[in-house]
Amino acid sequence: MKNNIPNRVVNQMFENDDFSKWLGIEVAEVKEGSCELKLTVREEMTNGFKIAHGGITYSLADSALAFASNSHGRKSVSVETSISHTKQCLIGDVITAKAVEKSMTNKIAIYEIIITNQQEEIVALFKGTVYRTSKDWF
Amino acid sequence: MKNNIPNRVVNQMFENDDFSKWLGIEVAEVKEGSCELKLTVREEMTNGFKIAHGGITYSLADSALAFASNSHGRKSVSVETSISHTKQCLIGDVITAKAVEKSMTNKIAIYEIIITNQQEEIVALFKGTVYRTSKDWF
Amino acid sequence: MKNNIPNRVVNQMFENDDFSKWLGIEVAEVKEGSCELKLTVREEMTNGFKIAHGGITYSLADSALAFASNSHGRKSVSVETSISHTKQCLIGDVITAKAVEKSMTNKIAIYEIIITNQQEEIVALFKGTVYRTSKDWF
Amino acid sequence: MKNNIPNRVVNQMFENDDFSKWLGIEVAEVKEGSCELKLTVREEMTNGFKIAHGGITYSLADSALAFASNSHGRKSVSVETSISHTKQCLIGDVITAKAVEKSMTNKIAIYEIIITNQQEEIVALFKGTVYRTSKDWF
Repeated sequence: MKNNIPNRVVNQMFENDDFSKWLGIEVAEVKEGSCELKLTVREEMTNGFKIAHGGITYSLADSALAFASNSHGRKSVSVETSISHTKQCLIGDVITAKAVEKSMTNKIAIYEIIITNQQEEIVALFKGTVYRTSKDWF
Repeated sequence: MKNNIPNRVVNQMFENDDFSKWLGIEVAEVKEGSCELKLTVREEMTNGFKIAHGGITYSLADSALAFASNSHGRKSVSVETSISHTKQCLIGDVITAKAVEKSMTNKIAIYEIIITNQQEEIVALFKGTVYRTSKDWF
Repeated sequence: MKNNIPNRVVNQMFENDDFSKWLGIEVAEVKEGSCELKLTVREEMTNGFKIAHGGITYSLADSALAFASNSHGRKSVSVETSISHTKQCLIGDVITAKAVEKSMTNKIAIYEIIITNQQEEIVALFKGTVYRTSKDWF
Repeated sequence: MKNNIPNRVVNQMFENDDFSKWLGIEVAEVKEGSCELKLTVREEMTNGFKIAHGGITYSLADSALAFASNSHGRKSVSVETSISHTKQCLIGDVITAKAVEKSMTNKIAIYEIIITNQQEEIVALFKGTVYRTSKDWF
């Protein structure tokens, strides 16, 4: 069923994904062109100031980009990403990345990913551009 | 001694930095406005395709940005970062991030960080902009 | 009156702005933290393919960034901007840039600017980061 | 002759390019994967502060991106661009954009473009990513 493609793709990408497991990423939702992922900040994710390293928020958003862009069933690879860290994340904070498709052509798609904490405050803004290959997942 | 400021700042930032320890980051060199960091890709840093998650390369470069920009002795915070992943990194690859200062004014500085593998092939290109606060480290 | 600050700032910035006049920019709306600007693509704005040069869309969005970020009454300067051109603009097209504030702290603010044509199709996506100085406009 | 491809492509792109003519862009050099363009800032290119509008520097760099990326003879289109304006440009300043290829794969290439004034001071830093189509120029 066509409707199952987003979930089948994400399940296959997530399987054996050791770093996402280490991060404790949970997939809250996946649809065609969008997804929502969560993780909880642990002490081993923090820098010397005991706030989450910028790489943690980036990693969550980058996974959201990969899942949202591949959810159409076409293999897609990241071309350019940018992130602005707007608020600190502390140990115990639950951060959520919501990916939304802003533009899609045959070859290129662009996603905005907003990362919020459990108070729904924005902690980071991410933009990602992918190249859509001509290979299908299934 | 003024000459020691870059090393003193980085030592203090690195101390208790749990995520950098988990990543196995080694500081190869720090000077005023520049630095060079390395890590070795481990299995737990890879995604479902057994290549390094984009967040690993980003994390290394983001640490290089923090160290290079704070090395002048003024507390500096990341404002905007972007990264393009140009080549896959495999388990066992040693990746090096070299940060170079491209522009610095009283309040804003911009760094280019080139990330290479052990064959000196570019694996990612990173650009980072920081806000230079008016607080000194020492 | 505080409510007049956005318009007073934009009037003052727009006055004597020769390039905006050449572009034929019209200010459709300015509020605290947001604004909407328009222009019509003319032949002299096109490249060899008779589509608007990427610099035209960028210029419109960059003016929207300047107006939206200064609208609070604090002098603000652009630090980093990025744009993705997603659809061609032809001679006669009316393009609109809407700037929305995504994040603001004491020193840094981030704006998303969506540029659309007269069919409300997205032609470009722009992100801008500004440094907020400590100087007021009035 | 293969060696002539960069110049033939740029001549063809430049022909009938009305906006580049308005800007007064001069092509100083074009090679495979690189190019150098110049313009002189005129009063009609300035904003209300009598400094060059950010769109002028962007336009020069965006043209350099187009020429450098198409110089291999494959039609290439801009996917994502970013620019940081680091120093003001005044009326009469001669600004030069030098494009250098940082990475190229079959489908994607990345260019760094440094924009300097006549004192060789950096006035802007630009990064551009293009999609390389499968169509040749000749």
